[in-house]
Amino acid sequence: MFKVDLNADIGESFGAWKKGMDAEVLDFVTSANIACGWHAGDPVTMENTLRIAKNKGVAVGAHPGYPDLLGFGRRNLNASPAEVKSYVTYQIGAFYAFAKAAGLEIQHVKPHGAMYNMAAKDIRLASAIASAIKEFDSSLILMGLSGSRLIEAAEEIGLKTANEVFADRAYEEDGTLVARTKEGAMITDEELAIKRVAGMVKNGTVEAITGKMIALKCDAVCVHGDNPKAVAFVKKIADTFRADGIEVKALR
Amino acid sequence: MFKVDLNADIGESFGAWKKGMDAEVLDFVTSANIACGWHAGDPVTMENTLRIAKNKGVAVGAHPGYPDLLGFGRRNLNASPAEVKSYVTYQIGAFYAFAKAAGLEIQHVKPHGAMYNMAAKDIRLASAIASAIKEFDSSLILMGLSGSRLIEAAEEIGLKTANEVFADRAYEEDGTLVARTKEGAMITDEELAIKRVAGMVKNGTVEAITGKMIALKCDAVCVHGDNPKAVAFVKKIADTFRADGIEVKALR
Amino acid sequence: MFKVDLNADIGESFGAWKKGMDAEVLDFVTSANIACGWHAGDPVTMENTLRIAKNKGVAVGAHPGYPDLLGFGRRNLNASPAEVKSYVTYQIGAFYAFAKAAGLEIQHVKPHGAMYNMAAKDIRLASAIASAIKEFDSSLILMGLSGSRLIEAAEEIGLKTANEVFADRAYEEDGTLVARTKEGAMITDEELAIKRVAGMVKNGTVEAITGKMIALKCDAVCVHGDNPKAVAFVKKIADTFRADGIEVKALR
Amino acid sequence: MFKVDLNADIGESFGAWKKGMDAEVLDFVTSANIACGWHAGDPVTMENTLRIAKNKGVAVGAHPGYPDLLGFGRRNLNASPAEVKSYVTYQIGAFYAFAKAAGLEIQHVKPHGAMYNMAAKDIRLASAIASAIKEFDSSLILMGLSGSRLIEAAEEIGLKTANEVFADRAYEEDGTLVARTKEGAMITDEELAIKRVAGMVKNGTVEAITGKMIALKCDAVCVHGDNPKAVAFVKKIADTFRADGIEVKALR
Repeated sequence: MFKVDLNADIGESFGAWKKGMDAEVLDFVTSANIACGWHAGDPVTMENTLRIAKNKGVAVGAHPGYPDLLGFGRRNLNASPAEVKSYVTYQIGAFYAFAKAAGLEIQHVKPHGAMYNMAAKDIRLASAIASAIKEFDSSLILMGLSGSRLIEAAEEIGLKTANEVFADRAYEEDGTLVARTKEGAMITDEELAIKRVAGMVKNGTVEAITGKMIALKCDAVCVHGDNPKAVAFVKKIADTFRADGIEVKALR
Repeated sequence: MFKVDLNADIGESFGAWKKGMDAEVLDFVTSANIACGWHAGDPVTMENTLRIAKNKGVAVGAHPGYPDLLGFGRRNLNASPAEVKSYVTYQIGAFYAFAKAAGLEIQHVKPHGAMYNMAAKDIRLASAIASAIKEFDSSLILMGLSGSRLIEAAEEIGLKTANEVFADRAYEEDGTLVARTKEGAMITDEELAIKRVAGMVKNGTVEAITGKMIALKCDAVCVHGDNPKAVAFVKKIADTFRADGIEVKALR
Repeated sequence: MFKVDLNADIGESFGAWKKGMDAEVLDFVTSANIACGWHAGDPVTMENTLRIAKNKGVAVGAHPGYPDLLGFGRRNLNASPAEVKSYVTYQIGAFYAFAKAAGLEIQHVKPHGAMYNMAAKDIRLASAIASAIKEFDSSLILMGLSGSRLIEAAEEIGLKTANEVFADRAYEEDGTLVARTKEGAMITDEELAIKRVAGMVKNGTVEAITGKMIALKCDAVCVHGDNPKAVAFVKKIADTFRADGIEVKALR
Repeated sequence: MFKVDLNADIGESFGAWKKGMDAEVLDFVTSANIACGWHAGDPVTMENTLRIAKNKGVAVGAHPGYPDLLGFGRRNLNASPAEVKSYVTYQIGAFYAFAKAAGLEIQHVKPHGAMYNMAAKDIRLASAIASAIKEFDSSLILMGLSGSRLIEAAEEIGLKTANEVFADRAYEEDGTLVARTKEGAMITDEELAIKRVAGMVKNGTVEAITGKMIALKCDAVCVHGDNPKAVAFVKKIADTFRADGIEVKALR
């Protein structure tokens, strides 16, 4: 039987600033990527977010990012692989402490924003991140852009992986995301988006922006919980998948 | 046989800023309190510091502090007990990840600066810190000011404790430290300082500033590694203790 | 003729985190206290907020706070008067640069949150803040809690002042705010709140929580723009004042 | 007569962390680039540093950097030109407040580290920085890498410029610095370094790493004050210049 994970970035509030419809989106996703205080999130938010995830039975993962609160971790930062490895270790550890207190196991680690994007293309960064994860707990799953250097680095050292795809993005023939600045980069038709992902899950293929069918693994789909419309889409994709014979479940 | 732990706060560099003679003082102390990135320290520094501590065979502890890099965690901050509990959990977790990667076990947790001082007097803060430690690992030792609320809070929930004393400070009759602003607060005579601590270790007593002998437990002595003179004093106190029949060893 | 200033704290977004209905509340207030990046706000937010304030013709003031983004500047921090003076100087300067670029003059400075509250009671802190303002520009107005040490410190060195009152708070006989934890601390009846402030403006008096009438100057009223209800109240207080012969205008 | 400015980055301490031999190097340089709290420095440090600069009669400039305390502003950060413009405005303003309190005029602005290097090559960043400076005070001098985009952007909008050279670095034929990773990138022979700079000042030329003589303007030489050897070199370069008919003086 086919199966896929739906995951969202949550726990992105910071102190007095609230962000995201965490409780709502947790009703539909199977995994949650929880910010660890560097690009978003803070200890109190982490603690509360893990409690909610536990109550909703959602699997949890650490979502480490660059030390760039002002830029929400979305800006490329030229930190060395050694620095990035230490940053990831630090954030996984902090996350672990809250997961432990909540009685939860960490399922996966997914780098955030610019760290995710840079490591998808840079094998040295990708290897640094994979090593940090493996040294902490070799049973953790590294979630990264499908077919990217992150997946490659994880496989190389024997870490389990989750190939992640984006329902709302077009792909180049080489499996990389079409740059947002390019026409056709975003898939705005919800039906089409869901159909494309279903195809990836069942056949491991998707139509590239050029029209050519390419291979693309899909273990997990990234969804959003920023606004009511996004949350409604998550419900829709989950319902459609189930009706279509695709089991929606966490990675483990 | 009598025994005591000598410990120093280390790992207090931050990014490009270096601080402390960590490698030197680690030759003489038996335990190290390592900053966790909130008042001092950073992931790369934590990783390096743990490696040095391991090489020197020194027991390690997390040294969590307030989120006040600018004030080095030395300024009272009116964070709630729930916030402080989360802050301590976060920092212990981050520290744990580096200790694990280095193949070291955490021996103890000692709050830093203003958090240490505030919790020494405030049972709600003290209990919050003790709970954070216990929920993470109930075998950890809480190191706090001898006879203070920190020790009381830890004992109440069954945590092991280390009563810490300061060789260079005078004590009031109630066992609290004489305020630095008061005359006679600092014990500047090294011989006297060592003699006083030896008395605490052997008899569990010390002469208060009033002249009265008071009870004061001493499991650990706080020493410093900021400068060559401080490091020389650490060596001297260790040598004197050993010559005096006091074993200098880590808490565990 | 009677007159009073209505002011709100705005510009409290930070990076990706949005906060407050700034554009809406600026339709009704006469002065805006704009965060300077330490407890809230950031350079891009400051720039945008000043542009909006200019378009709406609202007078602007710097709203410096403690270096506590995580606590939104609301937690007491034991910084020395010399440190606080430097912090205020820094933030006023940063604010000045954006005001200058926008072609606006700074009208006033109002400390934020814990800095406001601590300085209201501590003459050393209050004097430090007043000195920072005076050294930067002796024509600036210091806005502080009516009758507090902030006002006293400003008057002592010849700074202009704005005595600020809170429409939704009860007062003790000595003119200090009734602690929020005490019953009756909040004035929840909007009509009553407005009536009380009108009395302060016209007669310089208000009924303390004990029932006794006390003297209380009112140059400015602190209002909020966090939510639609708060904004509606600001409109209501402005309309009622105008109908009641009280001119609502900026301090200058 | 020939003349040149010698300048050093100072005021780089942060809170409890001390850095640099500021007082010593200020005896020999003619201009000081003072950190503004984002990559280094803090309000108290800025205030103290400006006081020392004033006592020594050294001209002062703002030294704004990226919001990367952990990386000392040395890591490329993909902030947008609009963000960088706001960041520079903020830091110049903060610096201005302390200069004003000290009774000093700002002479120049020199971006720090990664911001300096990125803007040297990126005209959009360079223009953003030049605009921020001009909008604050059009009489300020922008100091940047000799012949770089920073100089070009400043000239384009009519800002005064200071072409800066590095005594200890080799140059490519196009006037850019030879990458540190390349052999021969560093000029380690002090006599040669001084002779090269004297040539730039007198003839506006220098020998590129290829052996070819190239044009290179030199209004200012960047020197360092990190350690006793560096400070001794500053004295030596100043003495040699003076003996060689080159006046060492501030830009204004």
